[in-house]
Amino acid sequence: MSLRDKTCIVGIGTTPFFRRGGSGTRTEIDLMCEATLNAVADAGLSVDDIDGFSFYHNGFDAGRLSSVLGIPELRWSSVVSGGGGGSQGAIANAAAAVAAGYADVVLCVKALKATGPGGRRIGRPRLRDQREPAGGPDLDFNYPFGLMSPGQSFAMMARRHMHQYGTTTRQFGEVAVTTRLHASRNPAALHRTPITLADHDASRVIADPLRLLDFCLETEGGTALIVTSAERARSLRQTPVHIRAAAQGGSGAWGQGIYTHQMPGDEYTSSGHRPLAARLYSAAGLGPEDIDVAEMYDHFSPLVIMQLEDYGFCAVGEGGPFVEDGGTRWDTGRLPVNTHGGNLSEVYLLGFTHTIEAVRQLRGTSTSQVQDAEVALVTSGPGVNPTSALILRR
Amino acid sequence: MSLRDKTCIVGIGTTPFFRRGGSGTRTEIDLMCEATLNAVADAGLSVDDIDGFSFYHNGFDAGRLSSVLGIPELRWSSVVSGGGGGSQGAIANAAAAVAAGYADVVLCVKALKATGPGGRRIGRPRLRDQREPAGGPDLDFNYPFGLMSPGQSFAMMARRHMHQYGTTTRQFGEVAVTTRLHASRNPAALHRTPITLADHDASRVIADPLRLLDFCLETEGGTALIVTSAERARSLRQTPVHIRAAAQGGSGAWGQGIYTHQMPGDEYTSSGHRPLAARLYSAAGLGPEDIDVAEMYDHFSPLVIMQLEDYGFCAVGEGGPFVEDGGTRWDTGRLPVNTHGGNLSEVYLLGFTHTIEAVRQLRGTSTSQVQDAEVALVTSGPGVNPTSALILRR
Repeated sequence: MSLRDKTCIVGIGTTPFFRRGGSGTRTEIDLMCEATLNAVADAGLSVDDIDGFSFYHNGFDAGRLSSVLGIPELRWSSVVSGGGGGSQGAIANAAAAVAAGYADVVLCVKALKATGPGGRRIGRPRLRDQREPAGGPDLDFNYPFGLMSPGQSFAMMARRHMHQYGTTTRQFGEVAVTTRLHASRNPAALHRTPITLADHDASRVIADPLRLLDFCLETEGGTALIVTSAERARSLRQTPVHIRAAAQGGSGAWGQGIYTHQMPGDEYTSSGHRPLAARLYSAAGLGPEDIDVAEMYDHFSPLVIMQLEDYGFCAVGEGGPFVEDGGTRWDTGRLPVNTHGGNLSEVYLLGFTHTIEAVRQLRGTSTSQVQDAEVALVTSGPGVNPTSALILRR
Repeated sequence: MSLRDKTCIVGIGTTPFFRRGGSGTRTEIDLMCEATLNAVADAGLSVDDIDGFSFYHNGFDAGRLSSVLGIPELRWSSVVSGGGGGSQGAIANAAAAVAAGYADVVLCVKALKATGPGGRRIGRPRLRDQREPAGGPDLDFNYPFGLMSPGQSFAMMARRHMHQYGTTTRQFGEVAVTTRLHASRNPAALHRTPITLADHDASRVIADPLRLLDFCLETEGGTALIVTSAERARSLRQTPVHIRAAAQGGSGAWGQGIYTHQMPGDEYTSSGHRPLAARLYSAAGLGPEDIDVAEMYDHFSPLVIMQLEDYGFCAVGEGGPFVEDGGTRWDTGRLPVNTHGGNLSEVYLLGFTHTIEAVRQLRGTSTSQVQDAEVALVTSGPGVNPTSALILRR
């Protein structure tokens, strides 16, 4: 059985975006509710229509959110296990729940506070509660030697990619510059001042070879999307955006990733999306040549380069030249990427902003609209397990 | 779209069951792996066939479990949000994932340690991490006044049921006595010595009106089930047990439950399964008269009485007389309930042991076999949000 085009994203909503600390006394549930109200209004629905929740990255207390929103009868709720790679998987689970008849209108919602009440900085090393006497291999083998943060770990993968394929930090810079160009055209983006390769090169090194402008932002806000059946979508306010296909996966057996550094051979210079890309294209009945625009999770600029390779937009090792040639620009690129300004420049809220931008592209309402965009690829955090991706279709 | 009978439970496995502390130095992941190996062997599959994980109650690190089991490619993983009421929801999510084509063979797995390395007593009051400045209403309004544990909360609901419907503690005792009778026939059960109503009445009061023998056990062990498509099930070792229908839900809008005590009117004397029961029967195209055997989550004996009412096996308020008349006995009862000995006497592992017993009944291999059992109801923890339930069919 295939879910191809059986469900749609019919509503999108966000809060305003805030720099670190800027959301003030708002709690995560405040941000979730605000984004939700915007998403249901966008869809032409009311909160009363929601009967399912789809979460990722630790989830949230479904009963509490339901109570605060005043939902009459919640029928389904689920979380994609794992961390920030689960955003598109949460959309995928919503689609499966609607298709299964477990729920009719599923809210996919995520808020993030970087600091302040209830906030938690992403990327700060922390001892993870595994309810085990010993932690994972990262705690046993990496932390004691100072290898603790995502930035440090991705730096090693980036360096390896440079060594293996001749990728340059200037190419990482190209990702940052193009993404900022797109952000400069998006009034909602937090960082809108265009940057140059020289700015990138002058920004301070955080984890060699990664510089400040290779890192995603530390920001705050809420995001929400509404998933329902294609049938119901037809009578709603917006042009329906079909969930063509979805896939979840990770580095091989998922036991490998940036926290373990055990990946064999060229898997270490992959974003971890390769096995999942094959399944995604197969489920969609489409290939890289069919993708009009890609919103790719960009927590670190080199990972965009790796994803371009893993999704077959260029050969392995050719991602650097691809971006250097302007291949990802919204107007002239072969494959426009992160047309909203991504995690690097718009806002970093762990994934749904990419889905929301893909929906805008397919509705024709992006601030950097790709002409006649019909098919979009959206990816979740690479290098973590699980990660996930969607193909959406107008 | 309906999932009716499209997927099957094809393998079941457990570890030995242990009293509190009895699993010694085994960790939760040890227990999960042991149960998994038994489940795949039961199914006639190998660990290599698993490509999905379905969790509930906090879940588990999918990457780590995948790595330890040596799974070649994990394709999907998900957690039912919330607590112990999610067990059957985890089976439901597995079914939806298989139907959606996200995975072919999903492992539903849960281990519990009551103490020792990594163990955590269920039911012990704790401050819950809500990543919010204030906690939930339970923290604000109940805990300061000493209303902290599930036993205390359910005691209030039980007392209300007595007040409203004339239910007696002797009827609670009937649940305990019948369940122990079933456990006495199950070599795997931890408490096998039959008890009498006098034993129940002589057991100490823990949270008035609940006595020791009204409480579930505090025990340890692992449980695993394998879900795959009905098509694939046909070529496997065991008689396939079809997932006829599944539902998730809770007390009204899920914001209510034992931790808030806000339920209006007769919802307070309900198990919280009522709205979900209606959807479950509708999805199954079956009614209470079609159920041959029910495995009902019995963390506290009065909740079995409430579930009998909520699932329509008797009128509301008639659950007490139903059990008093021997209605739940495996051999002569109108509706055999908890034929393995349940959480009260076999083992308390948060839910999958009930599903496993339902599978045994439909395979014809229970130690208290209900003759010609064709349809089974399995429920998850009542009074918590979400809760969930399945109807299984031979």
